[in-house]
Formats: sequence, C-alpha cells, structure tokens
Amino acid sequence: MADFQLIKSLKRDQGGKIVLLVMDGLGGAPISANGPTELEAAATPTLDRLATEGALGALVPIRPGITPGSGPAHLALFGYDPLTYLVGRGVLEAVGVGVAVRKGDVAARGNFCTLDSGGRISDRRAARIPTEQAAPLCARLATIELPGVTTEVRHVKEHRFAVVLRGEGLAGDIDDTDPQQTGVPPHAAQPRSDGSRRTADLVNQWIAKANTLLEGESKANGLTLRGFASDPALPAFPEIYGLRSACIGVYPMYRGLASLVGMDVKEFPGDTPEEQLAAVARYWTDYDFFFIHIKKSDSRGEDGDFDGKASAIASVDAALPRLLELKPDVLAVTGDHSTPSLLKTHSWHPVPLLLWAPATIRPDRSTAFGERACDTGGLGIFPSSDLLPLLMAHALRLEKFGA
Amino acid sequence: MADFQLIKSLKRDQGGKIVLLVMDGLGGAPISANGPTELEAAATPTLDRLATEGALGALVPIRPGITPGSGPAHLALFGYDPLTYLVGRGVLEAVGVGVAVRKGDVAARGNFCTLDSGGRISDRRAARIPTEQAAPLCARLATIELPGVTTEVRHVKEHRFAVVLRGEGLAGDIDDTDPQQTGVPPHAAQPRSDGSRRTADLVNQWIAKANTLLEGESKANGLTLRGFASDPALPAFPEIYGLRSACIGVYPMYRGLASLVGMDVKEFPGDTPEEQLAAVARYWTDYDFFFIHIKKSDSRGEDGDFDGKASAIASVDAALPRLLELKPDVLAVTGDHSTPSLLKTHSWHPVPLLLWAPATIRPDRSTAFGERACDTGGLGIFPSSDLLPLLMAHALRLEKFGA
Repeated sequence: MADFQLIKSLKRDQGGKIVLLVMDGLGGAPISANGPTELEAAATPTLDRLATEGALGALVPIRPGITPGSGPAHLALFGYDPLTYLVGRGVLEAVGVGVAVRKGDVAARGNFCTLDSGGRISDRRAARIPTEQAAPLCARLATIELPGVTTEVRHVKEHRFAVVLRGEGLAGDIDDTDPQQTGVPPHAAQPRSDGSRRTADLVNQWIAKANTLLEGESKANGLTLRGFASDPALPAFPEIYGLRSACIGVYPMYRGLASLVGMDVKEFPGDTPEEQLAAVARYWTDYDFFFIHIKKSDSRGEDGDFDGKASAIASVDAALPRLLELKPDVLAVTGDHSTPSLLKTHSWHPVPLLLWAPATIRPDRSTAFGERACDTGGLGIFPSSDLLPLLMAHALRLEKFGA
Repeated sequence: MADFQLIKSLKRDQGGKIVLLVMDGLGGAPISANGPTELEAAATPTLDRLATEGALGALVPIRPGITPGSGPAHLALFGYDPLTYLVGRGVLEAVGVGVAVRKGDVAARGNFCTLDSGGRISDRRAARIPTEQAAPLCARLATIELPGVTTEVRHVKEHRFAVVLRGEGLAGDIDDTDPQQTGVPPHAAQPRSDGSRRTADLVNQWIAKANTLLEGESKANGLTLRGFASDPALPAFPEIYGLRSACIGVYPMYRGLASLVGMDVKEFPGDTPEEQLAAVARYWTDYDFFFIHIKKSDSRGEDGDFDGKASAIASVDAALPRLLELKPDVLAVTGDHSTPSLLKTHSWHPVPLLLWAPATIRPDRSTAFGERACDTGGLGIFPSSDLLPLLMAHALRLEKFGA
C-alpha cells in the first residue's frame, strides 16, 4: 500500500495533472481457447496508441487470488490498503444509494420482513416486495423523529433499504437485529460496547416507531437492520497527496466512495463516457486529480456479454480524444477489478493498467492495450494500492527521499 | 504469504479439485552460454501443451537471493511464510527419516562421537562410521527406558541419528549438548526455560544410559544432541483452506512435512511418477487437494547430472496424461526451489511455475514450459507462499472480499 506518511512528507504543492480513468471490471478472459479477451477484442485505436507511447502493467487489487468487492477495490486504487481500511456494509449500502455518510454518522442496511401475529419472522425478505410498493414505505419511515438526532432512510431495491443516523456521540458498534432465521422475532439492537449504548437505544426507539408505521401491511409489516457501521474515518485523499481531487462518476456507490475519501463529487449532465469527459473538461482548471468512473464494462461482464463488454470499452476509447485535448500530464487507464464475461462475476485476475505520461514515461515494448500485454508489461504486476504514488511521481509531485 | 485469517473467512466448502505437482529442485540453469536449462532441454510435449493453454510464472521461495532448504521451501508452497513458521532442525531430521512428530513431542538430531579416556570429544563425527555399524547402535539406544515418556531413535546416515521423546509436559527449549569443538566433553542438556527443565533432566538421564550402552565401542563411544525442537504447531492446512488434502510422496522428509501441516499421507505401491499418479487416481474422489512430490529432479541436480535431471523431468511429463484423464480443475506444476546441475546444490533462483485451469485461466503467450518463459510469464514473479490462494481462486473456492 501507499505509505501515507512517506507520501505526505514528500508531496509537492505543484506538478502535473493526473487522470485516473477506471473502467469498472475492466479485466477479462478469453471465452475460446487462445481467443482474445474483451479488451483485446475491442476496437481501441486510441488506447493502443497510448500503450505504444506509454507502458503497461497489471494490478492486484487485494492480494493474489482474492476477488474484491467494489468498495475495497476502489480504496486500493486510491492507495488505501483494503485489508486495513475497512468500510462497513451499512456505510457501503448507504453511499451506494447516494446517502452521504459523514464523520460521526451511523449507517445500517435494512430489510423489510413479514411478521406473524406473534411478532415472529415468517419471511425474512417480505416476499421480496417490488420497488413500487417498498419505496413509499421507506418514505413513511423517513418521517420518524428521534430525540437529538436526524435520520435518513433511502430505498435500495425490493425489500432492501439503507438508514443513516446523524448527530452527536453516535457509534455503530451494534449487533444485527436480523436473527438470520424465521420463526423467531427480530432481535433488539444490542450495543457491543458502552460507547454504542445510546445509539442502540435510539435505534430501538426508531424500530418501535417503524413497526407502528408498518402495522397493517400484509407483507412488509416488520424490519430488520444489519451491518451497523460508522463512517470509516479514512485519511483524506486530497491531504495525503496534496491533490485537489474530483470524482466524475455516475453511479452512487462510486460517487459515495470518492466522497468517503474526501474527493469533490461533481454534478454534470448526462451519463455517457463523452458526457463524463466533457465534465472533466468543464472542471479541468479547478482540480489536479480526476477520478473518472465508467460502469458499463463491469455490467456487461456480469451479464456474461463478451461483445457488449468489448463495445463498452470501445465506446470509452472513442471518447478519449476529447480527454487528450486537455493534455493531461499523467493518464492511467485501468479497472478496479476484473469481471470476465466468462465468469459473469468479479474475479481475482490482475487488472490491466495503461500508464501514459508523455514527459516522464519509460515506455515498454507494448503496442496494444490488452491483458496478455499487460501481464507481461514493463510496469510489472503490483498491488493496486501502489498505483497512486507512481502517478504522483510521473506528475513530478514527489520530492526525493533522502539526500 | 497467504493471509490465513482472510482465507479462512472467504473459503468455500465446495469447488474444484486442485493438484499441486512438485518436482523437487525443478529450477535449473544453462551449462553453456545461451544453452537451455534442464527443463528447457527436457522432452515435455504435455507440459508444453499445458503451458500453451495455461499461464506461466516464477516463484520466490523465501526472499530474493535466499536459498531454501526443503523444509521452508515446502512450507512456502503450502502458503506458510517460511520466516514466520519455523520448523526446528530436530523435527525436520526426525520427519526426514519417517518418525512422526506429534503435538507435545520433542525431537533432536544426534551425532555419534568419539570420546577419549577423559570423556573429552576427540572426533565429533566418530570417524563418520558407516551405516552398517551405526544402525545397530541406534537399535541399542532404542532400548533405553525413561520414566513417564517413550522414546524413538532412528538412524539417519553414517554417524547421524534422530531421537524423539514423547509424553506429557515436554518442551524443547534446550541448548545443544554438542560443544562444536574437540578436546572438551559434551555439554549436559541445559534448559533455556523453566518449562523445559524436566525434559532436560530426562534427556540427561537418556544420555547417561546411552553412554553406558556405548561403552567399549572404539569409535562411537559417545554422542551429542543438537537442534532440540518441539512440534511447530503449524496451523492445519486442511482447516485453513477447507480442503481435504492428500500427500502422494515417496520420500520420508516430504511425507513428514505434509503430515506436519495436517495432510493425509497416503500409502501406495511403487515409487515412479506413473505409480504416484496411479495413486492419485485411486484416491481421487476422497480428496479436494493433492500434493504430489517427485524427488528425482532434485537428486540429479545435486549430482550435477544435467541430462539426468532433464530425463527425470521428461519422465514426469510422460506420466502426466494419466493425471489429466482425472480432469483436475486446477493443476500447478512447479518445484520447491531450484537445484541447477550447474551448481550441484539448492539455489535461490526463482522456480518455474505452470498454472493450468481450463475453466478460469487467463492464458499468457507461452508455448513451452521453461525458465525463460516462466521468468517473463503472465503470472509474474511472486512469493511461493502466495501460490495456494491463487489455486483456491482458480478452483472457485474463495468468496468475494467486501461488497
């Protein structure tokens, strides 16, 4: 991982502009013997030119063989050791639907459930009630008032929602209320430490009021809460690296992660790669670092849609000239993890990395951007969390260590 | 190294079958300028096909530049950091000659020596008395009885033997009795901690009885003991990885190491690669993981026999189709360390690795199994102790980390 103390002691206030372009789930695999991967199959004339001028490598998001979720995979790209800096499930769920989780907040994941006449859970997922029925219930829960704190409730999907408590002196060291079985009532919220006692009391008050509001519902007449978590208090990215940092992403989860590390999360019209890169152009002078997150490569991989994933990659390539017109000093194109359409899910395979930095690069022999070239590229195979210092170096933003 | 807590938290109960085929001392070097290595020279049509379909890499057993013994080299392959998990020399000597060392046992290496009339050592190795003279002496020592413990004595080679004490409350924190010089008597066994006091007393009783039994011998009329060690209490391999694990090996040392980490060490007829792979077939349905150990590649390397080592490798290749008929999901072919016939001994050179996993592999561009291809292969150069998590991943035996 990036050694934050070292970086902080060496960082310069000035230097080049850095763009980290993340195609979610970029890494792939062949679907026929010795065939191309999605990235190798994609039409990427601009990326291939950048690969020729730059150097390739491959990133290990967590540890060899470990398949990452999006949260830890992104933290690693930002330089945080994902096994050290853990973001609780409740926080991820909340930021995933666009609820900001700030220092001192406590977040949890919620499930609607069905309770029988004795208050015992008969269906842990309330028959997976559809979004159109669940969303109004969440709006009803959002009206609950508690002494001294504010609450935010946001529907996620079907029976799932996120809830955030906000106020002084809260702590999220609280057991799940979900007993993980039917035939028994939900647990009360139990603090695991004295510091969480008041928060657990407030949660239990909230649950009591929620149950009253849900009385009479046929399916969703109860709820359980899981994954209580506080803001992870991550060291601030802009301070570690001395970079004015912006996130140009569309999906709430990635915008939320950027916000957790202290980047400015920008609003912009549209959601295509072109529109995202247009947004970069709009904010170009205001920031030193841009984190651009493209979702579609991962989604098509999860669908098992090899050609769709290749097209998603090609569409980013097609938009790239607009970014290059801005003359970034350092451009890294990579992914948070691999999502081979072969496996239809995240995987542990190292993630292709293209590093382009016209003023400072030592090129390798690569002539195209693809997994085979990256796995044997001049940058080697290294942990994702070592990427940011390398980008800082190429932007001439780090002083020499020692005399 | 493999992060055992992480692996344990992510491991699945189900998944593919994994074969780890270790050719001892596999790594080699050219004996003429730009000539082939032993592996590159060997006729290996099947391994070359697997290399084409799979991916290559190279393993660093301990740390760059560090030449490993067989013990730490194998522990690393099993995922144990060899600098953290130390197996005492006494234990290695004992398991090396087929004495099981179990929890609570204390083992030591023994040397016959020659004592002068004053009880001082005149020859620390008893003129390296031949095995035919030393083995009966070991049988004599095996008759020694001690209060409350049993003992096992096994001849190793020439003047060397192994002794194991077995019973309640033993501890191996005891200094060597070998003074490492002549002209002085052997030391008494000295405990280094209170917990080892009783064991040291027992050892001294054993030494006194042994000296009586050796009285009258012209060369081997005394002995020294070194490397006292308890069972290293290694975390159990089958529990860390959730793998029903079998060792198909011929040599006692490697069978002993497998047993120390909790694998089932199987009996089978014969000792050729064909017969070893036939044994794998016999036990195929009973296990998830097979550790196959082939010794001859190392022995020929130690002999400085380039062609012999290449032949030993070729004979494994010839037997491989039998293994492939079993349709393993993941097959890793590698070594514990390098033993270039050029150097006639173990070396620090990274060890060739071939990873074949038809359902999950991302192939590199390799078309043959050899050191040059491995050192620049798509899997990169990485610590041996990171191999097992990678094999687990390819067997789809690890859950995702984080959301």
